[in-house]
Amino acid sequence: MERIGIVGVGRMGANMARRLHQVGYQITAVYDSYQPSATAIAQELGATACHKLSELTALSEIILTVVTDDKAQMSLFKNKKDNLLIGAAGKVFINCATVSPEVHIQVAQLAKKAKAESLEGCMASSINQALAGTLYLMCAGEKSTFDRVKKILKKLSDEGKLLRYIGTAGKAAQVKALVNMVMNINTAGLAEGLGLGAALKLDLKILMEVFSQTGANSRVLQTDGEDMLNRDHSCFFSGAHAAKDSGIALGLAKKAKRDLPLAKATYQQYKKMVQQGFGDLDKSGIAELTFPGRGQKKSSKKSAPLPVKADRP
Amino acid sequence: MERIGIVGVGRMGANMARRLHQVGYQITAVYDSYQPSATAIAQELGATACHKLSELTALSEIILTVVTDDKAQMSLFKNKKDNLLIGAAGKVFINCATVSPEVHIQVAQLAKKAKAESLEGCMASSINQALAGTLYLMCAGEKSTFDRVKKILKKLSDEGKLLRYIGTAGKAAQVKALVNMVMNINTAGLAEGLGLGAALKLDLKILMEVFSQTGANSRVLQTDGEDMLNRDHSCFFSGAHAAKDSGIALGLAKKAKRDLPLAKATYQQYKKMVQQGFGDLDKSGIAELTFPGRGQKKSSKKSAPLPVKADRP
Repeated sequence: MERIGIVGVGRMGANMARRLHQVGYQITAVYDSYQPSATAIAQELGATACHKLSELTALSEIILTVVTDDKAQMSLFKNKKDNLLIGAAGKVFINCATVSPEVHIQVAQLAKKAKAESLEGCMASSINQALAGTLYLMCAGEKSTFDRVKKILKKLSDEGKLLRYIGTAGKAAQVKALVNMVMNINTAGLAEGLGLGAALKLDLKILMEVFSQTGANSRVLQTDGEDMLNRDHSCFFSGAHAAKDSGIALGLAKKAKRDLPLAKATYQQYKKMVQQGFGDLDKSGIAELTFPGRGQKKSSKKSAPLPVKADRP
Repeated sequence: MERIGIVGVGRMGANMARRLHQVGYQITAVYDSYQPSATAIAQELGATACHKLSELTALSEIILTVVTDDKAQMSLFKNKKDNLLIGAAGKVFINCATVSPEVHIQVAQLAKKAKAESLEGCMASSINQALAGTLYLMCAGEKSTFDRVKKILKKLSDEGKLLRYIGTAGKAAQVKALVNMVMNINTAGLAEGLGLGAALKLDLKILMEVFSQTGANSRVLQTDGEDMLNRDHSCFFSGAHAAKDSGIALGLAKKAKRDLPLAKATYQQYKKMVQQGFGDLDKSGIAELTFPGRGQKKSSKKSAPLPVKADRP
């Protein structure tokens, strides 16, 4: 059985590590730029908490990376002093962060030079699904690489029911960017509907019920509607992430010469959410911009304080 | 059993008439500004095709109005030469058009003066549901009026399972405006996601499947997604209607001092669809603005012709 290393053990990475450990895989090495996170999960799973990326590569055959953004993803493979590609010949990298398609393409090229293989494993699910092994997992890269690690990927994606091979390097990241672009539009749109309903003093429970029975229904109505009413914005997927992902999609649109006014408006709303200091809240926190009497305001009227809750378990 | 008159026998009104006839009600009178429509359905159901609105009122106890917009709705009750309120004492009007909340309030006041009653019966469903008697029906006005005609309304709303009493005059129209505002946002957003996917040459069937499994899922993905791919824009709910309803919602937002950038962007898109001559197509036709090589363009490159199909039965 392959030894697995995991780089980036935040909420997602740590739960993926736990899941793989649970189904019998050996997590031999973990790394995080925030050392205490690495130490904690290493102790929990009997792994080595590495201080260097090259050390993690040496201890693993299959390496999952679950980092935050383009810059973090690139530095894992390009940092001159220390990177994952030192001694990486024959190893496989599975990159699970939501990063730009071009970053995946660059990483694939760098890995190839180092005689290693690389695969995108874009996830369209959240923390709970990571732990349960029921992630919706979209993969891209060489088909042979996908087949080589399929056994492991299946354990993360409901025995493969939620596993999809999308195409060559960058393609899964494109699909992921589109998923999040549309999800963010639906979320920001829902926040407008409920916020206006609140301003009109409608019964918001009835309004939500009507939405759910009609053409206004959506997945985000089910996942975020109640939270918008209750101002429960504990974080599954942050407003800052939403802004980043809509930005990636708009970058693709620009290159493809597509004008997408709703995606643009959504990006502006999530940027505003970040600028107003709510970027760490869940994406449902976009409702702080649309409900009357909420959010940060520069007017003399004091707005209702925002109840910031801790992350959910 | 009450005699029923129906004003406005376009696709919706005609099917509601058929449904009520089918379950045993007597449709005694119909009226349409386009006389041939009235004549046809009158023959089909054994009703009188009225040439005057006051004639229709005289022949009916319960009068359903299913017209296109604010202006049409108001003229039924305000036209000096001929209107529905002549001899209307004791009769009930059920107004099913999607019009501005203020129009419903004004109609309710005019009806009261004429010693008649008026109820909003806002529908959040389409032609097929009208015929099947499974409309999602949101009512507002005096509760006593609602109770008086409940028996009839039930026959239109899956034996009352889809029947809701929302509140005083104007409130159902507000909810309806919000439903359509959110639905239109989700539709325009979906068109951006699929349009960009097409520009990136992604497999659109896989993209739709991924959307359906993730936070990008929505009712309009199920109802309009395939049609966007296939350019099948035969009309259930037209782009022109979508523009009108988003406009009503923005009017409410303005009064309530809510800034709704996505609703605005959506309204602009549907207005653009109308301006480009696609207003009669189904709302899914918004995809003509986002897919590469579609729609009307002023560039020298000839764009693909739009296959305009006839309305579905």
